[in-house]
Amino acid sequence: MERLPSLLSPLSSFRSSVALRPATAARFHIARASFASSTQMEAEHYKFGPYKIDQKEVFYSTDLSYALVNLRPLLPAHVLVCPKREVKRFVDLTTEETSDLWISAQKIGRQLEKYHKASSLTFAIQDGPQAGQTVPHVHIHIVPRKGGDFENNDEIYDAIDEKEKELKKTLDLDKERKDRSMEEMAKEADEYRKLVF
Amino acid sequence: MERLPSLLSPLSSFRSSVALRPATAARFHIARASFASSTQMEAEHYKFGPYKIDQKEVFYSTDLSYALVNLRPLLPAHVLVCPKREVKRFVDLTTEETSDLWISAQKIGRQLEKYHKASSLTFAIQDGPQAGQTVPHVHIHIVPRKGGDFENNDEIYDAIDEKEKELKKTLDLDKERKDRSMEEMAKEADEYRKLVF
Repeated sequence: MERLPSLLSPLSSFRSSVALRPATAARFHIARASFASSTQMEAEHYKFGPYKIDQKEVFYSTDLSYALVNLRPLLPAHVLVCPKREVKRFVDLTTEETSDLWISAQKIGRQLEKYHKASSLTFAIQDGPQAGQTVPHVHIHIVPRKGGDFENNDEIYDAIDEKEKELKKTLDLDKERKDRSMEEMAKEADEYRKLVF
Repeated sequence: MERLPSLLSPLSSFRSSVALRPATAARFHIARASFASSTQMEAEHYKFGPYKIDQKEVFYSTDLSYALVNLRPLLPAHVLVCPKREVKRFVDLTTEETSDLWISAQKIGRQLEKYHKASSLTFAIQDGPQAGQTVPHVHIHIVPRKGGDFENNDEIYDAIDEKEKELKKTLDLDKERKDRSMEEMAKEADEYRKLVF
């Protein structure tokens, strides 16, 4: 079997940014008191695979899909869009769910790109464990992109050596890394909730 | 402005695999004689941004979308799905085009994963130049993924050092790299055209 070129491998590192957080009731409680406005959202909790997502993290919702801010975003406004129904693989979605999910992603991407003064967007689904999926619930990664990040090949390779070390260190320390606080996430979701999708 | 972590940068390297080929009439002609069956496809040529895509490279088509094999695939069965209408950004698609594009991608991914005995899929849109888009025509990358590529973090970092050198060498030699032949691409498209989507 052919080994994957390094071109593709880092995509699987998206997983490190996915919200994998056990219930942290005390923190949720504090956050809830501070962000009462988010009780406008329709549900108390959303499911993201086996995880409960507090409504304060959710900034967009349709009958079939919802969008949440990220516990460990790779870049500002790196968000996730999911079907409400908990299915693992993209193929498991009905045509209605598929359409709704991507029309949602289209709207969210447009607004977040504008809001963050970005000029491009990366959309990706890691569909299955061998593509880097760790949460068994379909989700689209949307990442607003800007000029000057790794736009030019030359820059990529100058930066990779340096960044690789940081990355490795980060991953080695994975268990020690701090998740973003609920306050920070709720604040971000509150901002996005005001956008007109 | 924050610089992009190396986690994301390699996604932009997808661009190197995108079909950027001027018309090569002689080669097209030879290929056409060998693969007469592909004249069943509805159009003589498809547009992919400024490029003409021979129907022999196309293996799937609806009223709004089509799918083509890749000139420089990163992995076997790395294919592209495009709207037929030439628009640059994902936001430019109508809801009908967005739905059709992703329902097509869902069907194609399912069949190619099965056909290539893969177990996962990577779906990605590089939406805009700062996300790595070089052909100004929306396209989804679909890449079947298998266990043992870079599934495990440990493997990724063991492999990256080695692969990085290969990659750099490959990119340095970019102008010297040979595109796949039309015969090879037509043969692959012929195989996929027989799948039931």
